[in-house]
Amino acid sequence: MTPKQVTAFAPATVANVACGFDVLGFALEAPGDEVTARLRADIVAASVIITSLSGGEGIEFDGIPLDAEHNTAGKAALSLLQAANAPFGVELKIRKMMPAGSGMGSSAASAGAAVVAVNELLRLNGIRHFTPMDLIPHGMEGEAVASGSKHADNVGPAITGGILLLRGYNPLDAVEIPVPKRLHCAVVRPHIEVATSMARSLMPKEIPLKTAIMQWGNLAGLIAGLMKEDYALIGRSLNDVVAEPVRAQLIPGFHDMKRAAMAAGALGCSISGSGPSVFALTDSLEAAQKAASAMEAALRPYNVDCTEYVSKLWGTGPKLF
Amino acid sequence: MTPKQVTAFAPATVANVACGFDVLGFALEAPGDEVTARLRADIVAASVIITSLSGGEGIEFDGIPLDAEHNTAGKAALSLLQAANAPFGVELKIRKMMPAGSGMGSSAASAGAAVVAVNELLRLNGIRHFTPMDLIPHGMEGEAVASGSKHADNVGPAITGGILLLRGYNPLDAVEIPVPKRLHCAVVRPHIEVATSMARSLMPKEIPLKTAIMQWGNLAGLIAGLMKEDYALIGRSLNDVVAEPVRAQLIPGFHDMKRAAMAAGALGCSISGSGPSVFALTDSLEAAQKAASAMEAALRPYNVDCTEYVSKLWGTGPKLF
Repeated sequence: MTPKQVTAFAPATVANVACGFDVLGFALEAPGDEVTARLRADIVAASVIITSLSGGEGIEFDGIPLDAEHNTAGKAALSLLQAANAPFGVELKIRKMMPAGSGMGSSAASAGAAVVAVNELLRLNGIRHFTPMDLIPHGMEGEAVASGSKHADNVGPAITGGILLLRGYNPLDAVEIPVPKRLHCAVVRPHIEVATSMARSLMPKEIPLKTAIMQWGNLAGLIAGLMKEDYALIGRSLNDVVAEPVRAQLIPGFHDMKRAAMAAGALGCSISGSGPSVFALTDSLEAAQKAASAMEAALRPYNVDCTEYVSKLWGTGPKLF
Repeated sequence: MTPKQVTAFAPATVANVACGFDVLGFALEAPGDEVTARLRADIVAASVIITSLSGGEGIEFDGIPLDAEHNTAGKAALSLLQAANAPFGVELKIRKMMPAGSGMGSSAASAGAAVVAVNELLRLNGIRHFTPMDLIPHGMEGEAVASGSKHADNVGPAITGGILLLRGYNPLDAVEIPVPKRLHCAVVRPHIEVATSMARSLMPKEIPLKTAIMQWGNLAGLIAGLMKEDYALIGRSLNDVVAEPVRAQLIPGFHDMKRAAMAAGALGCSISGSGPSVFALTDSLEAAQKAASAMEAALRPYNVDCTEYVSKLWGTGPKLF
């Protein structure tokens, strides 16, 4: 009997990673979204219907549309089904574990899980299917629905796992960077929303050449540090002199959280994606737990609730159920 | 008997390496400068006298001062002798194989050879001496005499060999990047001079953020490519969208040379340092020879003489005689 249903998990992701603005992202082990794709021979071929949108405790879904063309998971699945010339339609059930506008790649997790699930359905039914790398452009179609622009620094690592460098987009050139064994991540998500478009509008159109040189020196150092498993070099390189200085104002208590994470032994600490989540990288699970607690405590005086996540980096590829 | 004399070789270097403006450099096997340091107990302690400046065929030395304070090799040696609190003075003999203003790190090769030779003299005489990494700041003192600014993207790899990333300068953070086994380099040096100060003055004070993102995406890709020994990725990453577009005009026939190198199979081709030398990286000796010939032929219609160099990257540390 041919399987008619597949469920896939795609994780939260940290984009930018301090000095890697717009070109670097990595996947966490948790949290993440789950999407179930069910083969539907009774609807138009290569079409998508969304029949369920549910989520974790306290996760709001107001404003997430259910029609496939305007839903990140739906649009990503549509793009893939059309590329595969699928002879059947697909029904999606989406379980979200992160709210939108969190800076943790919420839309990317949904789009990523959708293309991974649909791709597996294609494979199991003997239809043309794709490698994780080749799924990224379809995930990007979903991302574009949410953010208005096609980018892959969240949806790329959400699909492939690990640390992904987006060297360029013409054509898409995604480079897997090996994950150092001891690397862990603490994320604190304040319960406020920062619209990506708002965070983008703060970015200057031009930056001083000297600033750019500092940023690319740090990014080159970060890539070398990750590949050498040199935690001290990773730490020295985790400096963002471009986005963080202008975006920190959007996050209450950011500077206090960062100071607390560093004092607790983090290698580095910066804004996750366009915020408001704040991430810290560490060289042990224990240090990540300490950094998360320290950041949470530093945020307390600002009267903003938050959720903490402590996780290894998610090194493996797509996860299927 | 304690040795009284040491000769050291330091190689030509290619700084910037397309996308690594101001932060990346690598060493060639040849050409390079040689400096002989001789212990002189009969002059002021920790002082330097230069008694000879000679060089290869056709290498001009007009304008290179012989007093140590204003000579790159002399100043670098002075800085090192003072840091070591040397109880003796040193006499230097300098043999230059590249003219100044060539974009091949001529002053860095002299400064690098000087500190390596003097350091060995210190070691052999039981005086405090330094690791190659710790010699770099003294080499930079020499570089500052020639260019007016302290930078290490030439003198760093001239001293350590290999590929060196200068992540930052406060404090100096030099990161060794492993040299891919098959990597070769072709350099064509047109017989014209480009003053570093002139090349610097062309650089804009600010650059578009989008341009900066392209540059750091490429640099991150280049570091990953070098460390993965992924020659195709190295090739895709060797793009300079910041300096090359404004500096190409200083080099007659640059675009024709680049086109010729790429057509001959080079991984990438750009300006060496601030020019006028042009370098191409390849994945074999044969390809480097072809690229050098193709660039030379492309330059011929411009009626500019040139010298070609084909070399492996110089992977090992200081060379002593």
